[in-house]
Amino acid sequence: MNAPAIDHARLLDRLQRLGAVGRTASGALSRLALTDADREGRDLLAGWMREAGLEVRVDRIGNIFGLWPVSQVADPVMIGSHIDSVIDAGIYDGCYGVLAGLAVVEALRQAGAAPARPIAVAAFTNEEGVRFQPDMMGSLVHAGGLDIDAALAAVDSDGCVLGEELARIGYAGDLAPGAIRPHCYLELHIEQGPVLEAAGLAIGAVDSLQGISWQRVTIEGAANHAGTTPIAARRDAGLAAARVIAHLRDRVAGANAGTLATVGSLRFEPDAINVIPSRAVFTVDLRDPEEERLQAAEDSLARFLEGLAESEGVTVATERLARFQPVRFDPALVGLVAAAAGRRGLGHRRMTSGAGHDAQMIARIAPAAMIFVPSRGGISHNPAEFTAPADLAAGADVLLDVVAELIEA
Amino acid sequence: MNAPAIDHARLLDRLQRLGAVGRTASGALSRLALTDADREGRDLLAGWMREAGLEVRVDRIGNIFGLWPVSQVADPVMIGSHIDSVIDAGIYDGCYGVLAGLAVVEALRQAGAAPARPIAVAAFTNEEGVRFQPDMMGSLVHAGGLDIDAALAAVDSDGCVLGEELARIGYAGDLAPGAIRPHCYLELHIEQGPVLEAAGLAIGAVDSLQGISWQRVTIEGAANHAGTTPIAARRDAGLAAARVIAHLRDRVAGANAGTLATVGSLRFEPDAINVIPSRAVFTVDLRDPEEERLQAAEDSLARFLEGLAESEGVTVATERLARFQPVRFDPALVGLVAAAAGRRGLGHRRMTSGAGHDAQMIARIAPAAMIFVPSRGGISHNPAEFTAPADLAAGADVLLDVVAELIEA
Repeated sequence: MNAPAIDHARLLDRLQRLGAVGRTASGALSRLALTDADREGRDLLAGWMREAGLEVRVDRIGNIFGLWPVSQVADPVMIGSHIDSVIDAGIYDGCYGVLAGLAVVEALRQAGAAPARPIAVAAFTNEEGVRFQPDMMGSLVHAGGLDIDAALAAVDSDGCVLGEELARIGYAGDLAPGAIRPHCYLELHIEQGPVLEAAGLAIGAVDSLQGISWQRVTIEGAANHAGTTPIAARRDAGLAAARVIAHLRDRVAGANAGTLATVGSLRFEPDAINVIPSRAVFTVDLRDPEEERLQAAEDSLARFLEGLAESEGVTVATERLARFQPVRFDPALVGLVAAAAGRRGLGHRRMTSGAGHDAQMIARIAPAAMIFVPSRGGISHNPAEFTAPADLAAGADVLLDVVAELIEA
Repeated sequence: MNAPAIDHARLLDRLQRLGAVGRTASGALSRLALTDADREGRDLLAGWMREAGLEVRVDRIGNIFGLWPVSQVADPVMIGSHIDSVIDAGIYDGCYGVLAGLAVVEALRQAGAAPARPIAVAAFTNEEGVRFQPDMMGSLVHAGGLDIDAALAAVDSDGCVLGEELARIGYAGDLAPGAIRPHCYLELHIEQGPVLEAAGLAIGAVDSLQGISWQRVTIEGAANHAGTTPIAARRDAGLAAARVIAHLRDRVAGANAGTLATVGSLRFEPDAINVIPSRAVFTVDLRDPEEERLQAAEDSLARFLEGLAESEGVTVATERLARFQPVRFDPALVGLVAAAAGRRGLGHRRMTSGAGHDAQMIARIAPAAMIFVPSRGGISHNPAEFTAPADLAAGADVLLDVVAELIEA
C-alpha cells in the first residue's frame, strides 16, 4: 500500500460541523445524550461512516460501531470515544476521538491497506452522564459492568426513561451489548487539563487513569431563626457543609500527594437569608491515581463526617454515586503510542488521565490506551475548550501510526 | 367603666381561624404578602375589625388600620404587628399581636371605657419580606423610611410588581402613608427564641432590638474540570464561600459577645458534581444589640473577604440588602409593661429582641415598646411554632393593662 495519510482538513471540518449540531437559541452547544440534538449528531456521524464504506451497527444501549470488516475472522482493533456533550460545551471533548478514528480508517482504505484484523470505530452512548446516570454508560454496558436492562431503565430529572428516549430517537439497536469484542482499544482525546500545554508537549501517552469516588452527602440540622437562636443552640447544616469543604481542601493541599477533592454541587434548605439551614446536600468528587490513597481519602472523609455529627449536632448520611478504581493501561500499547510520537518528532510524555473516559471501561475487557493532545488553558466542559489545529492533526497522525501497526498483527 | 377583660377563647379561636388561611395542598401554611391567601387573611381581619365597631382604613402600601375614634382630637395609641407569613410558617408570628390588639379594643369597648385618645390596631404590609424586599416594608413606609413609590415598584422573583399585586388583591388604599401618627406604639409578639422558656418566665418587657446587617456576597472563580485541575491552579468559588461561613462562625463563637452570624442561603454555579464552582452567591445575616459591635463584625467580614480574594484568586462583590441600627425602646413604656406584668403576678424580665419587628420602624416616629411571650423550644418560622394558650392569654392581659393606662392620659 501507499503511505497512509490523514486528511486533516476534512477532520477539522467535520469537528466544526458536528460542533454546530445542538446549539441553543443563544448559540451554546448542549448535545445531551438521547435528545433530538444527539440524534442529529448521530445521523451525521453514521452518514460519514457509511460514506467511508463502513458497516454501521447499533447495539441495544445505542452504541454506534462503524465496522471495516475484513476476510479474516478476528476481533477488531477498536478506536472510540463519544459524541454526547455537557451543557454549554466545547466541540472537541469526545467528538475528536470518534472523528479521528474515522479519519484513520479512511486514510488506511485510501492507501489500499489490507488489514489482518477488522477495525471498529465506536461512539459510545452517554459518556457525560449529564442527563442519565451513570456516566460512561455505553462503554460500561459494553464491558459488561452494567446490566443492559438497568441502563435502559435509567430516568432523567423530567421522568423520561432512557430506553424510551433511545427508541424515540431511532437508536435502540438490536446488537447484543459486548458482541463486538475488541482485540485492543485506543482512544484519542483532548487532555482537558493543563499538563501538556504547560510542558510544551504535543502528545500524552496515557498510561493510567485516576480512580474516581463520587458521593452525595446529606447533612440534617434544624431550621431556626437567625436572629434569636444563640450560637451554642444551633444545629446549622450549612455550617457543617462548609466545614467539610474546607477540611477536604486543607487535607489534599497539605498532603500534596496527587489526591484531588472537589465539592461542585451544594444546596441549602430552606435557603432563606434569616433561617439557619436545616439541610445541606452536596457532592464530593475524590480522585487519585493510586487506589490506596483514594481509599484513604474516603476513610478520612468518613471520619471527619462522624466527628462533625458529634460537634455540630447534625446527622449525616452519605450515598455512593460512582466508584471506579484507578486504571493501568496496557504497557505495550502505551509504548506504541510513545514510539509513534517519537518517530513523528513530537514532544511527548507518559501521563495520567485526570478525567474519566470510555477507555477505562473498555480496559476491563481488552488491552487499552489513550492518546492526549493539549487543551489550551486546560479548559474543558466550557465553550472556551480549544486545541490548536496542528495539535489535532498531530494526535490523529499518531493514532494512525499505532493502528497501522496493530492491524498488521 | 367595668373592669375590662380579654375574651381569651375568642382570641385563641381567631388565631386558629386566621392560621387556617393560606394552607397549601400539603397543609403547610404559606400566606406570603400580597398573594390571594394574604387577601383572604386581610378580608377576615377587616371583617372582625368592622364587627368590633372599628373604622377600617387602608393606606397606599396596604397597611390596615382599625380605628376607634373618640371625640378628642389626639394621636392614637397604636397596637400593631403583621399577618403575612413566611413559607411553611407557624400561626402565631405577627397574627398574635394584631388579634390581641383587636381583643384589647373589644375588651375596652365592652367595659364601656371612654378613652382620652383614639386607639388604632395596625396590620402592616409585608413584614416578612419573603416575596418582596425589604422586610418590615409597611411599617418602614409608615415611618417615612422608604419612599412609597419605591416600595410599590418592588418586584418579586416572578417579575410581579408590588403595586400591581396590591391593587389586584384590593388593598391599594388611598390613605397617605404615615397619616395616622401614633402617640405611642405597642407590639405584642411571640419571642421566637428560647430565653423566656429557659428562664421559666411568662413575659418579656422588650427594651431593645438587635441591629441587623444583611449582605449578599458573590464570589467569582473559574469553572474547571474536577479531575484534571491541580489544586494549586484552582480558583474555587465554592471553597471560598465555605471559608467565609467557617470564619464567621469561628469569629462569633470565639468572641462570645452577643454577635450572631448566619449564612442561610447559598448557591453554586454551575452546580455540577465534576465542575469546580465558578460562582458562589450567598447571604450573610449579622446581628448585635450594640451598633459598635455590629460594625466591627461587618468590618471583620470585609477584611476577611479581601484576604480571600488574594489567597484563593477569586473576585468578591458584596451588596447591602438591609441595615438597621439597634433600637432602644422607650424606657417609660417598657416600665409600664414590666409593672403591668408584676401586678398580674407574672414572671417577667427585660430583654432584647433578636428578630426584627415592625416596632423597630415605628420607634423612629413614636415612643415604642414590645411585649414577648414564650416560644416553645425557641422555634419560629416553622410549623412547630407554639405558645401555650395560658401564655397567649397572659400576654394579651398585659397589653390590655398597658393600653388602658395609656388611653387615660
